[in-house]
Amino acid sequence: MNAPLKALETALQYQFKRTELLQTAVTHRSHSSPHNERLEFLGDSVLNCTAAHLLFLRFPQMPEGDLSRLRANLVNKDSLYRVATHLQLGNYLRLGEGELKSGGHQRPSILADACEAIIGAVYLDSSFDTAHALVARMLKDDIEAIIPGQPIKDPKTRLQELVQARHHTLPKYTMLGAQGQSHAQHFVVACDIDFLGLRTQGEGSSRRNAEQKAAEAALQLLEGR
Amino acid sequence: MNAPLKALETALQYQFKRTELLQTAVTHRSHSSPHNERLEFLGDSVLNCTAAHLLFLRFPQMPEGDLSRLRANLVNKDSLYRVATHLQLGNYLRLGEGELKSGGHQRPSILADACEAIIGAVYLDSSFDTAHALVARMLKDDIEAIIPGQPIKDPKTRLQELVQARHHTLPKYTMLGAQGQSHAQHFVVACDIDFLGLRTQGEGSSRRNAEQKAAEAALQLLEGR
Repeated sequence: MNAPLKALETALQYQFKRTELLQTAVTHRSHSSPHNERLEFLGDSVLNCTAAHLLFLRFPQMPEGDLSRLRANLVNKDSLYRVATHLQLGNYLRLGEGELKSGGHQRPSILADACEAIIGAVYLDSSFDTAHALVARMLKDDIEAIIPGQPIKDPKTRLQELVQARHHTLPKYTMLGAQGQSHAQHFVVACDIDFLGLRTQGEGSSRRNAEQKAAEAALQLLEGR
Repeated sequence: MNAPLKALETALQYQFKRTELLQTAVTHRSHSSPHNERLEFLGDSVLNCTAAHLLFLRFPQMPEGDLSRLRANLVNKDSLYRVATHLQLGNYLRLGEGELKSGGHQRPSILADACEAIIGAVYLDSSFDTAHALVARMLKDDIEAIIPGQPIKDPKTRLQELVQARHHTLPKYTMLGAQGQSHAQHFVVACDIDFLGLRTQGEGSSRRNAEQKAAEAALQLLEGR
């Protein structure tokens, strides 16, 4: 049986007025309807907005691109999975038979999604500010761990390091084409990791931008995100 | 000279306590620092969060995937450009010499970015709820125009219609590969529009998903977004 939700409220430091929202937030679609996917959609956007604001305040001089990269490093399936583990969310999940048997309680993606759904549920049950405070508690350690002066690695750098470490080779970038007129130009670049027979593509308003996108796509494949 | 910001406040139905925030929001990076890029980063996330909530409330039964597609149709450079035009934002922009001469006041991307920056500025100057109300006013007509029963066209359908109408041909999809184990599988699909010599790629946790991503990438190129 699922652990009582009271204990989860204690861990969240939040008491629901409408307990059914929390119930829905821990209900996977394999279990029953209403399940947590709509709340996850909402929670994801609250999470991103709160993370944007927290980083904006903490780094008053940081350019937009760096803030954006920092946020991507801060808010992702990995960090949400850590938060979910900390909350022992697996104990509260309501899963269908199949998911139960195949260990869905421990699956990072299911736990991360439920974590976002809980943020959405708190937002609906109270206010943006309350959900903001919850997210701030969740991300506190990760945000404090960011070292201000430390350069944020862009996708190309991260991909290069990963490929070099794992396979002792380097990704190659090839320009595939450009379209549009000067002010709205679009570039398409391929990123090849020959050793793995892997090709990804990226598009952007500059060559550099397109390369970063292609590297990001390759990273997603290699890191299995 | 730039029109006085008082008139913009009237159009926004919001009076700034810290007028310098509005000033920054209409300042393009080509003009001076502080410019509006950090505010744009913040405003974008407030906009997405508000749009998510508005759609969540208006369509209580709609699955997450449809909400997500609806939001992408609702919040994009086109719709922000329309809002910016309605606010006559071009009259208030502070641009550098070069941008001024090349008609930056009318450039959709500059206007859309400034629009997001204004949302971020209102959020910082007041509260999430006030910014939420501003966004709700901005998107009101577009949200009301959504017909609940009407199927939302996915990227593949939209691409097919566009390519067929313009070039009397159809996009082709080719599976390029799959990686990972059953629970974390990743598919890579190419979308070719032979007539244009255009190839884009998409990745996702299912073949269908990867095809949609590839179609979305092609749409972005063809629509010059």
